[in-house]
Amino acid sequence: AWNGGPELSHPDGWSFGVSGRLNYDAAYIDAPESTGRDEGFSSGARRLRVEFEGEVPGNFGYDLGIEVGSGEAVVMDATISHRSGPVTFMVGQHNTFQSMEELSSSLHTSFIERAAFTDAFVFERRIGVSAQYFQDDFLVQGGLFTDNIEAPDNRNEGGDLRIAYTPRIGSTQLHVGGSVHYTDLDGLTDSLRYSQRPLARPPRTRFVDTGDFSADSETGIGAEAAAIMGRFHVAGEAFWQHVERADFADPTFFGGYAEIGYFLTPGDRRGYRKGVFDRIRPTNPLNEGGFGALQFNLRYDYLDLQEADIAGGEQNLYGASLVWTPTDYTRFLMNYAYIDYDSAVIPTASGDNDYGVHSLSARAQLDF
Amino acid sequence: AWNGGPELSHPDGWSFGVSGRLNYDAAYIDAPESTGRDEGFSSGARRLRVEFEGEVPGNFGYDLGIEVGSGEAVVMDATISHRSGPVTFMVGQHNTFQSMEELSSSLHTSFIERAAFTDAFVFERRIGVSAQYFQDDFLVQGGLFTDNIEAPDNRNEGGDLRIAYTPRIGSTQLHVGGSVHYTDLDGLTDSLRYSQRPLARPPRTRFVDTGDFSADSETGIGAEAAAIMGRFHVAGEAFWQHVERADFADPTFFGGYAEIGYFLTPGDRRGYRKGVFDRIRPTNPLNEGGFGALQFNLRYDYLDLQEADIAGGEQNLYGASLVWTPTDYTRFLMNYAYIDYDSAVIPTASGDNDYGVHSLSARAQLDF
Amino acid sequence: AWNGGPELSHPDGWSFGVSGRLNYDAAYIDAPESTGRDEGFSSGARRLRVEFEGEVPGNFGYDLGIEVGSGEAVVMDATISHRSGPVTFMVGQHNTFQSMEELSSSLHTSFIERAAFTDAFVFERRIGVSAQYFQDDFLVQGGLFTDNIEAPDNRNEGGDLRIAYTPRIGSTQLHVGGSVHYTDLDGLTDSLRYSQRPLARPPRTRFVDTGDFSADSETGIGAEAAAIMGRFHVAGEAFWQHVERADFADPTFFGGYAEIGYFLTPGDRRGYRKGVFDRIRPTNPLNEGGFGALQFNLRYDYLDLQEADIAGGEQNLYGASLVWTPTDYTRFLMNYAYIDYDSAVIPTASGDNDYGVHSLSARAQLDF
Repeated sequence: AWNGGPELSHPDGWSFGVSGRLNYDAAYIDAPESTGRDEGFSSGARRLRVEFEGEVPGNFGYDLGIEVGSGEAVVMDATISHRSGPVTFMVGQHNTFQSMEELSSSLHTSFIERAAFTDAFVFERRIGVSAQYFQDDFLVQGGLFTDNIEAPDNRNEGGDLRIAYTPRIGSTQLHVGGSVHYTDLDGLTDSLRYSQRPLARPPRTRFVDTGDFSADSETGIGAEAAAIMGRFHVAGEAFWQHVERADFADPTFFGGYAEIGYFLTPGDRRGYRKGVFDRIRPTNPLNEGGFGALQFNLRYDYLDLQEADIAGGEQNLYGASLVWTPTDYTRFLMNYAYIDYDSAVIPTASGDNDYGVHSLSARAQLDF
Repeated sequence: AWNGGPELSHPDGWSFGVSGRLNYDAAYIDAPESTGRDEGFSSGARRLRVEFEGEVPGNFGYDLGIEVGSGEAVVMDATISHRSGPVTFMVGQHNTFQSMEELSSSLHTSFIERAAFTDAFVFERRIGVSAQYFQDDFLVQGGLFTDNIEAPDNRNEGGDLRIAYTPRIGSTQLHVGGSVHYTDLDGLTDSLRYSQRPLARPPRTRFVDTGDFSADSETGIGAEAAAIMGRFHVAGEAFWQHVERADFADPTFFGGYAEIGYFLTPGDRRGYRKGVFDRIRPTNPLNEGGFGALQFNLRYDYLDLQEADIAGGEQNLYGASLVWTPTDYTRFLMNYAYIDYDSAVIPTASGDNDYGVHSLSARAQLDF
Repeated sequence: AWNGGPELSHPDGWSFGVSGRLNYDAAYIDAPESTGRDEGFSSGARRLRVEFEGEVPGNFGYDLGIEVGSGEAVVMDATISHRSGPVTFMVGQHNTFQSMEELSSSLHTSFIERAAFTDAFVFERRIGVSAQYFQDDFLVQGGLFTDNIEAPDNRNEGGDLRIAYTPRIGSTQLHVGGSVHYTDLDGLTDSLRYSQRPLARPPRTRFVDTGDFSADSETGIGAEAAAIMGRFHVAGEAFWQHVERADFADPTFFGGYAEIGYFLTPGDRRGYRKGVFDRIRPTNPLNEGGFGALQFNLRYDYLDLQEADIAGGEQNLYGASLVWTPTDYTRFLMNYAYIDYDSAVIPTASGDNDYGVHSLSARAQLDF
């Protein structure tokens, strides 16, 4: 079978597939010139990834994803799993069930970069053990995690739980969910740093940024909701990140977004599967003589890193995106955002910290 | 055909296979608290590896193994080979025929980490040319080697030879072997460093450690013996590492182990093939409704790094392991060791260098 | 189908293949001893590469090549492409259409290292967008490029164009071509550095070397010609590299080579395809009981890095190579070169900068 790359399998319980993805981005950032961060044009590879997935007899599975491009070979998912009916057990590096958008593959997001809070609160893959249950539209995911594989030491230890209810009513797909997260930190000066770029990755400037700060623990609470109704979809999330600090006030940071999208091409709809957004499969793809799918999305994205003693700034982002999906395995995205910063950490020459930044970016994407 | 991963082949002499392995370890180290190295719990990925192997017409073969997880992409075996009847010629990075346990795949060892001397004496893959002969239970392996591929300069040049006799008498597999090794070094201050961790890899402390020392050459002599009799096996090795030093006395370091193992599950036996231990294939695997294979092993492992002017310490390790092999391609290991150190390089607060360390570790393993 | 590695495909427009290459080199450099760079013997892995290539429906294609060995995972070609009749569009990292020898795969070159100017002028893969047209023996390739994927910043922006006419007249393959290149640089002190090693890669010494210098732009012009007449072939190229500098005279560096080759084995000829040299497929390969193909080549290679204010030295290289190709996917090369340096940047003890260096090297090569 083919699923981008080839998938080989054998009735005895063997399977193997290679998959991968290539994302190339170009971005244009227009910031007040006197901030010294009016970056203008930049471009680069956003993701070059290859992944080996398969099963061996006994309902065991594996996944090893590797990202290249930086000179490094960065390990993404790297898991050993075991399937037992509706339950899947996993050991190894994987996502900590953080949020619907973080867990949806980067192949299927509606904007080039995800919601501000997902990077700001350092959602990442970590080494851990987990169990996932899915049956009758009901999803439960829970695990115990330590650090990302490249973290030098065992500094973090935590637990994560996510629940979602995902009924399909007629042709409408609904999603409501929530998650809780706790991480025990080491209390050192550089325990945490929350920051975010202006909806584009080649640019490096972070206009909101807490800098390093000490922390004893993080407690996160997330809420998720989405609906897909034919060519329409709506989605929204909210995430509260509470940080315990030994000799300081405890801040509760917050981020969230609301999005609405519509396919300009009849018959197309957003993909969805087991608690996350999934692949768009155009009704009239380019390879069958059609135009593919064309989707228009609007998003409001808020992030507050200005709490208690921490002055990381605040952002209100207003974004629009156009996503052309000529075939199941190719996409071209363009998005524009106006980001309104309050208390940005990079002042203008006149000392102003409240200003707006324009962010325009484009992506070419293929996966296999 | 399937051998963990898929193996494609064609009668004209083509073949290709992808394989890989994932090892996740957790360890608990209990050392005297006043050494400052009472590490407690640690965990991490021990091996994440993908390997491409195949043949092209003309009896040529290739192997390229890559390990990830550290941010680096570390090259393991990377060879071009040519088969001519019982002889295989090889050029590229491969093992230097060091010892039976070092040459047995990490997938098939009876403890989570190998015998102390194999790491201590820096057994590693090196770039070289070699020939291997196997026929009528008789194995000869010899090669000329320089450095590991990541070593910055051509500093080492050496030769290695290993011989083994591997008769099967009735249902009993015997193995006797020996090896000699010579490496010409550069005589610089940091030519060599021999050290070893407490039978676990996430922990970093090395209680025995020579530190860097100058050396002109290494001469190693190894002896190997093993027998597999149904559910029982015994194995043992001894290795003498003699170091020539220009203006100092020449130390001869020593390491060795003896092991006995028994399968608690009837019908199971340790795998063996061409001079090394091989895959355990449970008689009643999980995927056929059985329990898999369960093996219990005991080991004594000695290492002496305290010789001539070099004060690296000495260790006597007493270990026990339980290895559950539910299916051919999955294993779960747990081992405990009490390690009795003499002249450890890390003293206690009271200046004591003779003490014991408890080491407990567990591994989840899948290969494909 | 098999093409070294396996190639899987499906009539709906899917295909996938894994390929790779292993090159191991040994070199002996004999330079005047008093330069301190009389390196003698060195060896190492020259290339260890794995590449994933394929197509997804809609005439889209991808290519992701990764080189390992240095500890790093270095990205080679990493492209998304789209085929439309005789035109192929590409986005991602790929070659900038620099010269016939640079664009010919390292698997198919007639010497172990390419012509001096190709490394000296830093021909490399860069991120960009391009279009290529090939029909009726006529090739046009053009693109806009920024930097190599590992370059930290967007410093370079340029355009490249190459044209070739490649008629086959009877059994004679002809090739004439030319290319122009323009790169806008940043004018900083270390904008450029041109240098070259003595026709071997494990040795590190660069006897010709401009050192870092400031530059505003590069303009390159290349000319190419080649002919394959049965067992004979000739090939030659010339390349002028003009550099604009703000407050200094503008140098025009130059490099070029001429080569003649002959197969000692009847019936063999050099491969050629779409503007570059291609695979040699021996008439009587080893796997069919033959000897394979044996080719003898002579080359003169000139490089001038001594222009305007830049004193990088000059080299005249006289080389001979013997290439044994036992099978389609294996090669063993040996080449010798006498390199006559003028104004070399490494003086002898007596202050002499004009001297000769002997370079002897050998390679074992397999690709899949």
